[in-house]
Amino acid sequence: MAKRQLLLLSSSKVHGFEYLEYTKDDIQELLTKNQTSTVLFIPYALSNHEAYLKKVEIPFKKWGYKVEGIHNQEDPIHAIQKSEAIFIGGGNTFRLLKTLYDNNLINPIRNRVLKDGVPYIGASAGINVATSSIHTTNDMPIVYPPSFEALNLVPFNINPHYMDPDFSSKHKGETREERILQYHEEKNSKSVLGLREGATLYVEGNHAGLKGVAGARLFQK
Amino acid sequence: MAKRQLLLLSSSKVHGFEYLEYTKDDIQELLTKNQTSTVLFIPYALSNHEAYLKKVEIPFKKWGYKVEGIHNQEDPIHAIQKSEAIFIGGGNTFRLLKTLYDNNLINPIRNRVLKDGVPYIGASAGINVATSSIHTTNDMPIVYPPSFEALNLVPFNINPHYMDPDFSSKHKGETREERILQYHEEKNSKSVLGLREGATLYVEGNHAGLKGVAGARLFQK
Repeated sequence: MAKRQLLLLSSSKVHGFEYLEYTKDDIQELLTKNQTSTVLFIPYALSNHEAYLKKVEIPFKKWGYKVEGIHNQEDPIHAIQKSEAIFIGGGNTFRLLKTLYDNNLINPIRNRVLKDGVPYIGASAGINVATSSIHTTNDMPIVYPPSFEALNLVPFNINPHYMDPDFSSKHKGETREERILQYHEEKNSKSVLGLREGATLYVEGNHAGLKGVAGARLFQK
Repeated sequence: MAKRQLLLLSSSKVHGFEYLEYTKDDIQELLTKNQTSTVLFIPYALSNHEAYLKKVEIPFKKWGYKVEGIHNQEDPIHAIQKSEAIFIGGGNTFRLLKTLYDNNLINPIRNRVLKDGVPYIGASAGINVATSSIHTTNDMPIVYPPSFEALNLVPFNINPHYMDPDFSSKHKGETREERILQYHEEKNSKSVLGLREGATLYVEGNHAGLKGVAGARLFQK
């Protein structure tokens, strides 16, 4: 069994940087190490797949990689099985997870990443689906997926775009912290890593660490 | 068939006011008109039902009403059928809707409000479940309900605690507007009323209007 290799980006954009630019060095290091020339892109979190592919191609082409959109492949399962690296972009987590289920891609991606050790890069919604479940997404439930259980590439949950409570706010909607604590009142809930924008969790085998400057907050049940 | 009577509060708290205090006049007017002495409270959106009941009792008792918690009733369906008024408080929308389904209360509440004309007061999560579906809640999906379809007391959706886009923000998570527009990309999605904190939608029969000062924004597909 090859080593698990994950790069989990809290967001694809960080204030002051172009799309994915802030994490360029991390992505290049991971892909160079694996001698990857082509990245398989999964655009299901947004409605316009081809427009999303065009956007993702800009940075990857500049860095010397080819990007293929899974929506252009005749057999998506086969595309996963022969992929050199997988990138799942942000958007709506419910739509993304539902489409992964609809296309029967949950187990193929899981096997490709955990058994074959193919690098997985996810951003925002792309990291919600990489974790144990989507129970801690920030997104609106715009469609109904057959389950909230996800790829389970790591045995815990992440809250991307994590924001610390703003004690000066006059807004009375729940803070992110309150929402995560409500999740922890539920049976069988998992630990949650609140990953601030600009923070990246990398996982190599059974080792995990943080990159970037923004840091993270771990909520243990 | 009696007239539908709904009071849909974007939030139970507004900055500078005690719990429910900002909407006191609207609640009292509705309950007085219906000669209500007892309000049936549904606390399912929070985990500690008894503590939630105690909190809700404070303003209602002060205004001269008795509050019964549905969690203390031996037969919740019967409690709905004999209720004089129903109040569903805020918290987590997924947990609230799941518990309504688990206790088989969807149709009993719907019948009691739409056929018998019993007043319905909802706040935050309590208005998400009053609408067509919970597709436009802001809450985290901490539990998996059997459906996102809700009480459908009105044939559209509401987004409570609606916030206008903040163009000065450096945060890259989706704005509320972007999230609602993503919902409208989906088939069969409904109009969405973005109800700002401090705004109340009242419905009498087939007439609806806004109360409060904060206003609302209507997203039509």
